[in-house]
Amino acid sequence: MGKKIRELGVTIGKLPVGRKNCITDVDGVQVGHVTLDFPIDEEGTYACTGVTAVLPHSGNLFKKKVTAASYVINGFGKTTGLVQVNELGVIESPIMLTNTFGVPAVTQGTLEYMLERNPEIGISTGTINLVVGECNDSYLNSIRHCPVTPGHAIEAIQNATEEVAKEGAVGAGKGMVCFGYKGGIGSSSRIVSVEDENLSYTIGCLVLSNFGEKYEFQADRYNSSKQQEPTTVKPTDGSIIIVLATDAPLSSRQLQRVIKRCGIGLGRTGSHFSHGSGDIVIGFTTAHKISHVSQSVVEIRTQLREDHPIMNKLFTAAAEATEEAIINSMSQAVTTAGRNNHTVHSYNFEN
Amino acid sequence: MGKKIRELGVTIGKLPVGRKNCITDVDGVQVGHVTLDFPIDEEGTYACTGVTAVLPHSGNLFKKKVTAASYVINGFGKTTGLVQVNELGVIESPIMLTNTFGVPAVTQGTLEYMLERNPEIGISTGTINLVVGECNDSYLNSIRHCPVTPGHAIEAIQNATEEVAKEGAVGAGKGMVCFGYKGGIGSSSRIVSVEDENLSYTIGCLVLSNFGEKYEFQADRYNSSKQQEPTTVKPTDGSIIIVLATDAPLSSRQLQRVIKRCGIGLGRTGSHFSHGSGDIVIGFTTAHKISHVSQSVVEIRTQLREDHPIMNKLFTAAAEATEEAIINSMSQAVTTAGRNNHTVHSYNFEN
Amino acid sequence: MGKKIRELGVTIGKLPVGRKNCITDVDGVQVGHVTLDFPIDEEGTYACTGVTAVLPHSGNLFKKKVTAASYVINGFGKTTGLVQVNELGVIESPIMLTNTFGVPAVTQGTLEYMLERNPEIGISTGTINLVVGECNDSYLNSIRHCPVTPGHAIEAIQNATEEVAKEGAVGAGKGMVCFGYKGGIGSSSRIVSVEDENLSYTIGCLVLSNFGEKYEFQADRYNSSKQQEPTTVKPTDGSIIIVLATDAPLSSRQLQRVIKRCGIGLGRTGSHFSHGSGDIVIGFTTAHKISHVSQSVVEIRTQLREDHPIMNKLFTAAAEATEEAIINSMSQAVTTAGRNNHTVHSYNFEN
Amino acid sequence: MGKKIRELGVTIGKLPVGRKNCITDVDGVQVGHVTLDFPIDEEGTYACTGVTAVLPHSGNLFKKKVTAASYVINGFGKTTGLVQVNELGVIESPIMLTNTFGVPAVTQGTLEYMLERNPEIGISTGTINLVVGECNDSYLNSIRHCPVTPGHAIEAIQNATEEVAKEGAVGAGKGMVCFGYKGGIGSSSRIVSVEDENLSYTIGCLVLSNFGEKYEFQADRYNSSKQQEPTTVKPTDGSIIIVLATDAPLSSRQLQRVIKRCGIGLGRTGSHFSHGSGDIVIGFTTAHKISHVSQSVVEIRTQLREDHPIMNKLFTAAAEATEEAIINSMSQAVTTAGRNNHTVHSYNFEN
Repeated sequence: MGKKIRELGVTIGKLPVGRKNCITDVDGVQVGHVTLDFPIDEEGTYACTGVTAVLPHSGNLFKKKVTAASYVINGFGKTTGLVQVNELGVIESPIMLTNTFGVPAVTQGTLEYMLERNPEIGISTGTINLVVGECNDSYLNSIRHCPVTPGHAIEAIQNATEEVAKEGAVGAGKGMVCFGYKGGIGSSSRIVSVEDENLSYTIGCLVLSNFGEKYEFQADRYNSSKQQEPTTVKPTDGSIIIVLATDAPLSSRQLQRVIKRCGIGLGRTGSHFSHGSGDIVIGFTTAHKISHVSQSVVEIRTQLREDHPIMNKLFTAAAEATEEAIINSMSQAVTTAGRNNHTVHSYNFEN
Repeated sequence: MGKKIRELGVTIGKLPVGRKNCITDVDGVQVGHVTLDFPIDEEGTYACTGVTAVLPHSGNLFKKKVTAASYVINGFGKTTGLVQVNELGVIESPIMLTNTFGVPAVTQGTLEYMLERNPEIGISTGTINLVVGECNDSYLNSIRHCPVTPGHAIEAIQNATEEVAKEGAVGAGKGMVCFGYKGGIGSSSRIVSVEDENLSYTIGCLVLSNFGEKYEFQADRYNSSKQQEPTTVKPTDGSIIIVLATDAPLSSRQLQRVIKRCGIGLGRTGSHFSHGSGDIVIGFTTAHKISHVSQSVVEIRTQLREDHPIMNKLFTAAAEATEEAIINSMSQAVTTAGRNNHTVHSYNFEN
Repeated sequence: MGKKIRELGVTIGKLPVGRKNCITDVDGVQVGHVTLDFPIDEEGTYACTGVTAVLPHSGNLFKKKVTAASYVINGFGKTTGLVQVNELGVIESPIMLTNTFGVPAVTQGTLEYMLERNPEIGISTGTINLVVGECNDSYLNSIRHCPVTPGHAIEAIQNATEEVAKEGAVGAGKGMVCFGYKGGIGSSSRIVSVEDENLSYTIGCLVLSNFGEKYEFQADRYNSSKQQEPTTVKPTDGSIIIVLATDAPLSSRQLQRVIKRCGIGLGRTGSHFSHGSGDIVIGFTTAHKISHVSQSVVEIRTQLREDHPIMNKLFTAAAEATEEAIINSMSQAVTTAGRNNHTVHSYNFEN
Repeated sequence: MGKKIRELGVTIGKLPVGRKNCITDVDGVQVGHVTLDFPIDEEGTYACTGVTAVLPHSGNLFKKKVTAASYVINGFGKTTGLVQVNELGVIESPIMLTNTFGVPAVTQGTLEYMLERNPEIGISTGTINLVVGECNDSYLNSIRHCPVTPGHAIEAIQNATEEVAKEGAVGAGKGMVCFGYKGGIGSSSRIVSVEDENLSYTIGCLVLSNFGEKYEFQADRYNSSKQQEPTTVKPTDGSIIIVLATDAPLSSRQLQRVIKRCGIGLGRTGSHFSHGSGDIVIGFTTAHKISHVSQSVVEIRTQLREDHPIMNKLFTAAAEATEEAIINSMSQAVTTAGRNNHTVHSYNFEN
C-alpha cells in the first residue's frame, strides 16, 4: 500500500487540508468499497474490478435528500441519474462507482437496498433516482463477463464508514489505469475559512481515476523524476468520475459553479479531457437535509453570498482537492495484475 | 384601440386573472413605453418602432437585485445580458425591449441611466449587466436607419408606471407583426393560490410578439371565425420576447422551470418556434431583493417546495398567461402603416 | 383494440401522414414489444408492464451508428444514456422503453444482446452506450417487484419489425396512464416535401405516454364530447418518453432543434410539463450510417440548409406527430386491470 | 515592447507552434486594433482602453459565414451575440473585443460597418448577429466616460491584417490587468498533424487577459523567479475572452468540444475561474464558408472523425495555445499608466 502524495513531501496547492485529507472530512460523509479479484475461468478471464459507495450521510438518503449538482467535463460516459439531479438539484441515494458494464447491476442493487428501507416507494410515493458513475477497466478486468452483481452494490453501501477511505486499487478502482500506471480511488480535502467571521467549511473530493497517456502526465509538478517501469498501457475510453462533497451552504446553482472548477485540477495533472473520456463531476452539500415530505410549502435555505471571498476559496479548494485526489489515487495504487496476464505498474513517486 | 381578448368573451385557460390582467399585477412591477412614429425622409423611410421598459421594482435595481432566469426557446436572436443572468441568477437593471438594431442604443441609454444613479459603478464597485431583448420590425420600420437613440431608452424607463400597461402597437411593439397581422405588446396575469394555506401568488406576463405565418394561427381557439383582411405579411426572422414576472419565492433554478412553460402557451397559439425566430423568455421574481453589498456571508432565501401542487399551478399559470398575452398583443393592436407604404392590418377578433 | 384517432375522424395538424402513420414509416425503423400481464402472488401483486424497443435500423447499430440528439423537456426522470448522446450526437444501440424500476434489467439485457453481436467490445474496442427511457407505471404494475428481466429486453429487440407498431396498452405501455385514462404506446408520422425540388422526408414519432390529470386534457381539440368513465387516477411522477425518427439529413445540432418542437405537441394535448414528470425526447436520423471504425479522418456529412422552408416544415411535423402519437396512445389503449384491483379505463373518443 | 515568452526561452506544451505563433497562422484570419490613450479631463479622467477586431476571413463575413461555437467558462460577463451562435453554430461578423461599457458603441459601429457592406440587410433579408466580448479595464480606464465610440470599432476592423498581431497593452488590451500585472492581448498557435495521412491543421488563439490575483499566478511554470515590482492591483470583475481559430473541418458541436479545452490552459496559469470573472471562449473554423443564400437545400460538410487521434491533438493544442497566449499577453505588455495616477507594472519574465 502506497502513501498519500503529501506524506511523500509533495504539497499541492495552498489551502490547508482536513484532518483525514479525505472526502470523509466532510462531516457525515461515508465511503465503502467492495473489491473483486479472482479468476473467472482458466483461460485468463479475470474479475479485477469492484464497487465504491459514497454516502452523503448515514441516514435515510431518500427521506433526507441533499442539495446536489452535476457537471459533464467530457461526456463519453455512461453515468446514470444526472437528468434528475440537473432538474431538481438533489441527490436521494448513495453515489455509486463501478466499471462501465457494472452500471446496471449496481443500479439494481442500490435500488433494492433503497426499496427495502423505504417501503412506500412505488406504492404511496413516487420513485427514486439513483446515481451511478463508471469508468472502463477492461485492460485488467474481463468486463464482458459482468462480474459485479447487485449484491456487491449493497455490500459496498453496508461497508461505508466515516474513516479515511481506502485508496488506490480498491473498490471500483481495482482495475483502473491513470496515465499508463495504476490509478483508481483517491481522495483529498481542503478547509476554507474566514477568520474574522468564524466561518469554516470543508471540501472533500473522491475520484475514480482512469484516464490519460503517459506522455501527458505533468510529472514535474510532483517532483517525480524517478525512473518508472515502462508502460504502453493506455485506457481505451479512459474516464474520471469526481465526487465533490462540502458542508458549505450552497444552492444547486452555486454548487455547480464550485464543481465546475474540478476540471482545473484535472487539467493540471496533464489531462486534456480526451475524446474517449467520461469526465464527470457529481457534487453535493450536506448543509441542507431536505425532507422527502413536508407540511410547509415554503422552505428556507441558506446559501453563501457569491461575491464574498469565501466563494473564490471554495473554487480554489475544488481545484486543489481534485488534483491531489488524482495524485493520491496513483501514489497509493499497487501494481495490479488482471485478465490475460495484463499487469499495470504502480507509478513510483518516491524520490 | 382594441380590447383585451377576455373583454371580447374569449377565456384562455382556467386560472383566475389578476385585477389588471397585466404584468403589473405583480406588486411593484412597472412598464413604460416610448413609441416612434414619424417619416425619416420623403422617400418612404419611416420610424415605426419604439422602446419598452419592464422594471422589476421602482427602486434602485442595481442595489436591490431580483432573482432571475432566462430560457431560450429558439435562439435566432440578439438579446443581450443572458450570459450573466444564467450564471448568477439575478437581474440588476430594467429589462428593455426594442427592435433588433436598436439594441446597442438601448443598451447604451440604459447604461447611462444606471450609471447616473449608481456613481460607484466602474469606480469602487464592478460593472452592471443590462438585459435588452429585441424583435425585427423591418417590415414597417426602417430598421437600417436606427431611429432609436439612447435617450429613448431613458425615456421609456422614466415613463414606467404600475398602471395597466398599454398594449398593441406601442413602445417596442409599434412595428411588430404576428401571424401576418398586427402584433406588438401584450400582457396578462394569473393568480395561483392554495386556500387551506392562505397562500396566493401572482404570475404576470408581457410579450413583444412578432412571429408566425397566417396559416399557423390557431384561430379556432379564439372563436375568431370572422373574415380577415387578406395578408401576405410574414415577419422575416420573426421573434417573441416573453417577460415573466412573479412574486412567488423561487430559486433561479425553480424560476427557470416555470418560465420554460411559456413555450407551451406560445405553441398553443400556433407557433412552431420557427427557424428564424428569436423566442426568448426572461423571468424574475420580486420575492427577494438582493442587496448589492452585504455584511453577511450567509444569506437566507425562501423557496417553494417543488412537490407541492402550487408548483404545477405556477407552471400552468406561465403557459396560460403567455398565451393570453400573445392574443392580447393582437387584439389590441391597431392597423399600422410604416415604411414604403407598408401596412399591417389589425386582426379582427370580434364576432 | 381501439383505433387511431385519425380513423375516428379527427385530424391533427395540416401535414400529410405517412403510409402507416407510424414511426416505422421512416425507412428501416423497427419496433418490438414484450408485454407482461400476470399475477405475481395471490395478494394482488401483479405484473402489468413491459418493454418496447425502437431500432433505428435492422443492422448492427454499434457498427453503424445513427446521428442522434436528446432534449429534456422536464427532467424528473431516470432515462439513461443521454450524457453520451449529448456529447457525441450518436446512438449506437436500440432505444429501449420500460417502467422506472425496469431500467437496470433492460439496460443489462440490451448490453448482453449487443455484446453477443459485437465480440470486440470490451476487448479490442471500447464500450457501448445504451439508451433506456422509462415511465412510472406503479398504479397498475407492482413496480417494486421488478418483474421485467434482462431476457425481456432481448425479446423485445428480437420482436422488432417494420410493420405498424402495436399501440396502446402494449409493451412498455401496458401499465401507463394518460390524463387519468389508459395511455401507453402511440405512434404517428408526417411527410414533409418540397415539390419543386423533388424532396421528401419522413418524421415518425413513438411515445410512451403516462402523464397528465383529467382536468388538463384539451378534449375539445379531439371532438370528444362523449361521456367518460369517472376517474381519479393520476400518475404519480407521470412522464412521457418521445422517440422521434427521421430520414432527413440533419446534424445533431439541427436534430435537437427539431425534437425540441415535440414539446409543442405535448403542450397542445393539455400537458403543463408537470413537476414530477420525466418528459424526455430522444431523436435520431437514419440519413447517415456512421461506421464504428473507419480509415479516413475526414468524414462527409449531408445536412439541410436551415433557412430553407423545409426546416420549418420539419419543426411543424415534429409538433404534429407528437400530438397525434399521444392521442393515438389513448385512443388505442384498452381498459386495463392491474395490481390490487386497480383499473384504468379507456378514454372514449368515439362520438 | 516585450517579447513572446517563447523568445525568452520558456516552452509551453509539446506541440509545434505556427510560423507567426499567432492566431493569424490560421490562414485568412486577421487582427486589427485601435488603442485609446489620452486624458479626458484635467482631474485624472483618462481613456486607457481600445478595440480589437478578429476577422475570420477578409471577405464579406455576412455573405460567407464560418462555423462557430461558444463556451462559457464562467458567466460573470456581458459578451453579446452568443444566443445565436449557440443556436445556429455560425458567426457572420467580426469578433470584437473592448471594455465592458464599450460594448454598445462597438456593437453599433460593427453594425454600421456591416450594414454598409450589405445593403440588403433589414430590407430584403433578415438581420445580422454581432459578437462583442469585453473585460473590465476600470482600474486604468475611466470606463464610466465611455471613451470608445462606434467609429473606433470600424477603425479596428479596417486596421485588421494577417500579420503577427500586436500584443500586450494594445487595442482592447490597453487597460487590462492580469495576475496583478499588465495583461491585455496575447496570441499563440499550434500545428497538429498526422504524418502518414499528410494532414495538418492549425489552431490559433488570441486572448484579452484581465484576471487573477498575484498569489494565484503559477510563476514556477514560466521560470520566472525574478523579483517583481510589488502590486496590489486586482481586477474587479476580472475576465478573459479567448478567441480560438482553426482551419480543421469541424461541426459546431465538435468545435465546442475543442474550445472547452481552453479552460485547461487558463487553469494551468493559475486561474480558478473566479466568481467575478467573465471567462468566455468564442471559436470558429475557416474550413467551411457558408453562403448566406444558396439554391440547394442539402449542404455537404466535412468534419473530423472524433475517434481519430487528431481530435485529441486538437484538444491539446487548444489548451497549450490558450496558456501560451495568456503568458504572451503578459510578457509583451508594457508598464501602463491610466486614470487617477493608477499604474500597472509589467511582469518581468526575463531571468
